[in-house]
Amino acid sequence: MNQKALWNLSYGVYIVSVWDGERPTGCVVNSAMQITAEPATVAISVHHDNYTNGCIEKTGRFAITVLSEKTEPSIIGTFGFQTGKEINKFDSVKYDLKNDMPIVKDGCAYLVCEVINKMETSTHTVFLGKVLDADFISDEEPMTYSYYHKVIKGKSPKNAPTYIGVENETEENKLKEKRAKYVCSICGYEYTGDIPFEDLPEDYVCPVCGQPKSVFVKKE
Amino acid sequence: MNQKALWNLSYGVYIVSVWDGERPTGCVVNSAMQITAEPATVAISVHHDNYTNGCIEKTGRFAITVLSEKTEPSIIGTFGFQTGKEINKFDSVKYDLKNDMPIVKDGCAYLVCEVINKMETSTHTVFLGKVLDADFISDEEPMTYSYYHKVIKGKSPKNAPTYIGVENETEENKLKEKRAKYVCSICGYEYTGDIPFEDLPEDYVCPVCGQPKSVFVKKE
Repeated sequence: MNQKALWNLSYGVYIVSVWDGERPTGCVVNSAMQITAEPATVAISVHHDNYTNGCIEKTGRFAITVLSEKTEPSIIGTFGFQTGKEINKFDSVKYDLKNDMPIVKDGCAYLVCEVINKMETSTHTVFLGKVLDADFISDEEPMTYSYYHKVIKGKSPKNAPTYIGVENETEENKLKEKRAKYVCSICGYEYTGDIPFEDLPEDYVCPVCGQPKSVFVKKE
Repeated sequence: MNQKALWNLSYGVYIVSVWDGERPTGCVVNSAMQITAEPATVAISVHHDNYTNGCIEKTGRFAITVLSEKTEPSIIGTFGFQTGKEINKFDSVKYDLKNDMPIVKDGCAYLVCEVINKMETSTHTVFLGKVLDADFISDEEPMTYSYYHKVIKGKSPKNAPTYIGVENETEENKLKEKRAKYVCSICGYEYTGDIPFEDLPEDYVCPVCGQPKSVFVKKE
């Protein structure tokens, strides 16, 4: 079995958001798909370890913001590589309330859903949500997971179903091996800019998770 | 609610295949996503009315062929707009057996799965499959659902969760309204070539479902 063949499944990149009782929280999800047309329902997959999972369980509601190709990548860093148990992720982004649910403004569409069914798996819950509200936010192209990997050069959070340790070992990256490589120790983003990493200004921050230059480590 | 906002979710285009006891059969699915990493599991959504659904239920197995941008569009016509109750869809395509399951050769990857859980909805069953085998078939780019709509100009089969009657009323199409438009009455493919439809040779066939020129109807 060549597990890399599973990367040929196509996905988008979404923020699933929810209330924890007191404040909004959420996480990055790539697994979301429409299941029925009338009424419109959507299934999402959320890792048991994600704070968002328990909040959906408790409140019976979730929202989805569809990220666009123009969405600031640091939003993926905040929502994909930090935990809502410790920080208020919505402190760092602009958001709207739609049907009382928090929606990230920097996306291209949103959906508000009410949980009507769920399926448990070994690590993830698949929630089935009836769509209560949906609309476009902008006319930007939706960000695909492939775009996130190929253009933004992002990695999968450890809780993503598509997470595999060696994920970024593509042919393209192997060709660049002559130069010392630096990766963000927080989110796994690999620096691929034209300026050698050592020459970047000291106030350089990871474009995905916003952490400082000092958290980057030389890749062996 | 603007239900069109749901089209901003990203999907691939897949053939889900199965044995019906005597012969291979299958259907087109756009809803497939990896749910867990270890063991690798994948969820697919299949309409109750699809012959494939009952066959998966009966045999507890399914395979997924990931279609590529180079896949012959007529495969989508055969598997998406005809029923396996009446014809042997695999008569018209080359296929391989992997773990005894039929795989369409004209794709870029395949997965063979064993059903380990399912979730029922009003019109579709979400099957959770443990991946038994997976590999690449070619190095072509996976076909996304967006590519199918925008480049191949294909429509959704009526059993697709994303099916909405007015689906192809995009701005782009509205601009072309001055010329008489012809659509395939079988699969809904809309002819958009440079030669006026009336001037096409009599042996022209629908590029999606392979039906003859005579089944095309003028769109009002």
